[in-house]
Amino acid sequence: MQSAEPKLNKNSLLLALRRYSSAVGEMEKTILLPSLLRDVPSNEVWDCEAAEETCRDLYGNYLMLKAIRNTAESSLVLLDDHKTKNNTALNKTLEQLLDTDPEALFHFHLRGLFSVTSNLTKKTQSLTEKYMDIIGVAN
Amino acid sequence: MQSAEPKLNKNSLLLALRRYSSAVGEMEKTILLPSLLRDVPSNEVWDCEAAEETCRDLYGNYLMLKAIRNTAESSLVLLDDHKTKNNTALNKTLEQLLDTDPEALFHFHLRGLFSVTSNLTKKTQSLTEKYMDIIGVAN
Repeated sequence: MQSAEPKLNKNSLLLALRRYSSAVGEMEKTILLPSLLRDVPSNEVWDCEAAEETCRDLYGNYLMLKAIRNTAESSLVLLDDHKTKNNTALNKTLEQLLDTDPEALFHFHLRGLFSVTSNLTKKTQSLTEKYMDIIGVAN
Repeated sequence: MQSAEPKLNKNSLLLALRRYSSAVGEMEKTILLPSLLRDVPSNEVWDCEAAEETCRDLYGNYLMLKAIRNTAESSLVLLDDHKTKNNTALNKTLEQLLDTDPEALFHFHLRGLFSVTSNLTKKTQSLTEKYMDIIGVAN
């Protein structure tokens, strides 16, 4: 029974949020001149065909990753968040989910938040590495 | 600027999870004989037409609310959670969301988790009141 604990801890939402926060901290510490990221296309980091609004340069990604970290750290929910409100696909999804079993819905969002946070951590690390490439520093 | 803080705190995910946890604690303290809830239909608490699996008696609801509280308290994510896996509607939704802007997706799940947690808190309080009615104690 003892060996199950570290495996469970790895899947803790709080730990995933902390990991993301520390990856962004590392990114900020490394990227001393964020302006070097301007106009560098971000195709490899974000899927540009999927959502037009994420087709920014690496500088846009840098700002976005920092903004999400601030929300993650405070865990504050913007109930009238315009970003989600203006996204019709997400709104449609929300409507469909309202009729769902609340237990499944709880796990769905917990799992979703965990997964998107882990994904953002990887994107942050990848962006940091890309900056190192730009300034010519080997990892 | 000072007055904005309590308003923001009200929308904190951590606070919502704590509120839910305390509502379940209150329910456990009040419901000394959970077996009295057996075979009491739960139509008013859960929407039975929407998801067949939630059509349990109040005793089933009682157990479910406690189980979700345990997950909420540990914030552990069951990545191979069979409840979500077997729900085709949720799986379809997950697939659609994979292509979405990660920032919107983060807010979507944060908002969703906040909203389902607040909803579960209300259901817990309503179940506790129903038990008081059954044993004939006025609120």
